[in-house]
Amino acid sequence: MELSSFSTIFLLLLFAFTLAEVESVYFPGIYQSSLKKIGKTVKPKIPYKAQYFPQVLDHFTFQPKSYKIFYQKYLINSQYWQKGAPIFVYTGNEGDIDWFAANSGFMLDIAPKFHALLVFIEHRFYGESMPFGKHSYGSAKTLGYLNSQQALADYAVLIRSLKHNLSSEASPVVVFGGSYGGMLAAWFRLKYPHIAIGALASSAPILQFDDITSWSSFYDAVSQDYKDASLNCYEVIKGSWAELDSISAKDEGLAELSKDFRACKQVHSINSARDWILEAFVYTAMVNYPTAANFMMPLPAYPVEEMCKIIDGSSPQTTKLSRVFAAASLYYNYSQTEKCFKLEDETDEHGLSGWNWQACTEMVMPMVVSNESMFPPSSFSYKENAEGCMKQFGVAPRPHWITTEFGGTRIEQVLKRFGSNIIFSNGLQDPWSRGSVLKNISSSIVALVTEKGAHHTDLRSATRKDPDWLVNQRKQEVKIIQKWIADYNLDMKQE
Amino acid sequence: MELSSFSTIFLLLLFAFTLAEVESVYFPGIYQSSLKKIGKTVKPKIPYKAQYFPQVLDHFTFQPKSYKIFYQKYLINSQYWQKGAPIFVYTGNEGDIDWFAANSGFMLDIAPKFHALLVFIEHRFYGESMPFGKHSYGSAKTLGYLNSQQALADYAVLIRSLKHNLSSEASPVVVFGGSYGGMLAAWFRLKYPHIAIGALASSAPILQFDDITSWSSFYDAVSQDYKDASLNCYEVIKGSWAELDSISAKDEGLAELSKDFRACKQVHSINSARDWILEAFVYTAMVNYPTAANFMMPLPAYPVEEMCKIIDGSSPQTTKLSRVFAAASLYYNYSQTEKCFKLEDETDEHGLSGWNWQACTEMVMPMVVSNESMFPPSSFSYKENAEGCMKQFGVAPRPHWITTEFGGTRIEQVLKRFGSNIIFSNGLQDPWSRGSVLKNISSSIVALVTEKGAHHTDLRSATRKDPDWLVNQRKQEVKIIQKWIADYNLDMKQE
Repeated sequence: MELSSFSTIFLLLLFAFTLAEVESVYFPGIYQSSLKKIGKTVKPKIPYKAQYFPQVLDHFTFQPKSYKIFYQKYLINSQYWQKGAPIFVYTGNEGDIDWFAANSGFMLDIAPKFHALLVFIEHRFYGESMPFGKHSYGSAKTLGYLNSQQALADYAVLIRSLKHNLSSEASPVVVFGGSYGGMLAAWFRLKYPHIAIGALASSAPILQFDDITSWSSFYDAVSQDYKDASLNCYEVIKGSWAELDSISAKDEGLAELSKDFRACKQVHSINSARDWILEAFVYTAMVNYPTAANFMMPLPAYPVEEMCKIIDGSSPQTTKLSRVFAAASLYYNYSQTEKCFKLEDETDEHGLSGWNWQACTEMVMPMVVSNESMFPPSSFSYKENAEGCMKQFGVAPRPHWITTEFGGTRIEQVLKRFGSNIIFSNGLQDPWSRGSVLKNISSSIVALVTEKGAHHTDLRSATRKDPDWLVNQRKQEVKIIQKWIADYNLDMKQE
Repeated sequence: MELSSFSTIFLLLLFAFTLAEVESVYFPGIYQSSLKKIGKTVKPKIPYKAQYFPQVLDHFTFQPKSYKIFYQKYLINSQYWQKGAPIFVYTGNEGDIDWFAANSGFMLDIAPKFHALLVFIEHRFYGESMPFGKHSYGSAKTLGYLNSQQALADYAVLIRSLKHNLSSEASPVVVFGGSYGGMLAAWFRLKYPHIAIGALASSAPILQFDDITSWSSFYDAVSQDYKDASLNCYEVIKGSWAELDSISAKDEGLAELSKDFRACKQVHSINSARDWILEAFVYTAMVNYPTAANFMMPLPAYPVEEMCKIIDGSSPQTTKLSRVFAAASLYYNYSQTEKCFKLEDETDEHGLSGWNWQACTEMVMPMVVSNESMFPPSSFSYKENAEGCMKQFGVAPRPHWITTEFGGTRIEQVLKRFGSNIIFSNGLQDPWSRGSVLKNISSSIVALVTEKGAHHTDLRSATRKDPDWLVNQRKQEVKIIQKWIADYNLDMKQE
């Protein structure tokens, strides 16, 4: 496998959907594809009422067209609310807000204790919150308004209006979010402290920009998860790529591969198979939850270990690739309902281009695959990335804008004496944890780190099988949030 | 005088330039007219080199046209700088940056002590920093990009680039500003703590929005200044408006008034005379400096007292209006160079529409004149204001946007446990002080208030005649800034 082809696939945004889908693995935006898949089959039941807020298109210019209104969806649950009590707001990420609400049961779990109002706000340009309807993804002319600063301003405007309409201006607001939503929650507390008294930012890789975090960290972390489960497992996966490459050389290689991989249709390129496998390993590392869960896909508890058990338990006589395929099948077919696998999906029914756009403009998170990783090495080039984005969207990335707007460099020094009331929660199984805040910065900007946690495990609904470390992490979070609210109430009394 | 006509003049932005000029009295944007006047006659000599930075037009959208580059002017002085030492940045307000640099000598005075690099950045759409050249003020289509958030982002991008080019990423940046520039300095520290370690926000009325500060505070404060100087003075001024009104009833009233007021050309309306007088009293209250100064106009020390001495010293036989005229003449002609007064100036050579635009979009500071004031009462209506702005610019104001974006409501509670390193300095003679922060909020967000200070007196160059309270205020500022830098250096060592 040539480096250049690999790096093109992984680190540039391309037109081909299968490649774009792979790209999405490497950003917090990963959920969307599965979200839509799930959305179509199992519509999550959530105890929220959908509302639509008339939101302003452009908060930061005052041209006549900036005043265009679009309807921003939000979900609300007031069953536990007592007037004056806190408002818990989820700062929606890159997808349908129903899905984030369904997978952030923690807020619902703790609402009674706080008598809290629950609000989940959908991010502009995702789900139903489309400023230009079906033309929203048409071009940079419309997509230009899709970015994190506009989204944060949306949240500020919506929350202020909601509190006003509820005559609850004095209710303290706490923001919650996971992954990109967690980044938004943390940034919201930093930029809008007058609107949110604190933020729980779960698995929020706000340091995955510029040179702050090692560019190889993400894939190194994924690889480490598998290595921790079993060294043999790691080595089999690492060795499988050469086998996959060798198929290219065979005359009937693709037909054979399609058959071996139970593809619904014959694949056109070994890249499809590689991306399909890679996605399974990366996603599974992220959702390596301690209990059975259905976030990306239905999976057993600690699915990384389960995958490795499949690999380790297979006969050493079989090819590495066949063992890796068997492991990937756990991810794609744990429910045993798939008769064949769609390795190449030409349609963009998942609406991935939203995050692709963000990744091509502001959310430039450079990533490489090092030799120590179990994946084939690849590099990153700002120049090539810019060329690819220019080709796809007609605009160039602003690769250093996020750190200019939100900071990140030397975050310990900057926030040691500035800001307050942010919890950065992370599970070290989650490869995104490497780009997040893992150490306490001050007495009230704190890191809650669990060794065994995965991608925002803490935001999920409690289950009876939750391990002690998870129960404790959530208890700490509740305790900290209680402190924020107590401080707030105290300060308000002294007014 | 009818209330409606008065309120129209004072509180709506209109097409007629003379009215627009009066409007500008009531916002921090007041300097510009005098700035340009001064700029034409006495070009201030300042020890700075002008540079031009390629700045991005729109930081918050990613449309192809957002990437348009304009050249933003900044001034730099490195004569005292030692590499690694602090960088002092003035966050430019609504006017030519040369003029702010010339009137912020404090930074130059203290630069040697800190070995500081001095940088004064011009605000977009003012001075030479015109994104669309001479078409910049053409319409809302171009003016739409003129606002405080874009300006703050400009400063962030420019400072980061400058530090990079100087290989001085670790140099601490302290921002300074007066009036609107002070608001920007405070907001910059709050929004970009990763770029500026602290802010000296002098006479920054960040609370002059919504209902945070009493709408009558500004004119009440102006009136109080004159009342404090002399009760008779206050009463004469207060009584003069009825005399002015009565001129309307006379056949040759305007001719007589023009003669009495030594108008270069006969005035068309008594409104012109009223605005002309009012401007003199308001501006003089703002620049009631303890030493002779030439900020708005050349004036003696404590010019409010001087004006009242003129009023009090005049024969009680003369009309109140003639005494008020004599006092206003001090403001317009202290240098004794004017042969006649231009009460109506039809040309827009001062480029005031920049601030008018801001006041008509984001910077909506409601103001009324109460019965206790020495000015004729007037009211404010959001609706009328919106209609006037719509008429003038084709866009409606967003009157609550500033408090949504930057806060202000219950600022003590919000910033008590959030943020750090801001000095809000104010002189109580300055009518803008009523809308600023006058009490310490936390151990490092502090208020330095002087009873006798006027509009950012502290930012002016030191003189031998400076009173002790001013010398002390500046000493305190230096001490606090030294502490910020010491803390920063300590934190950096512990990295």
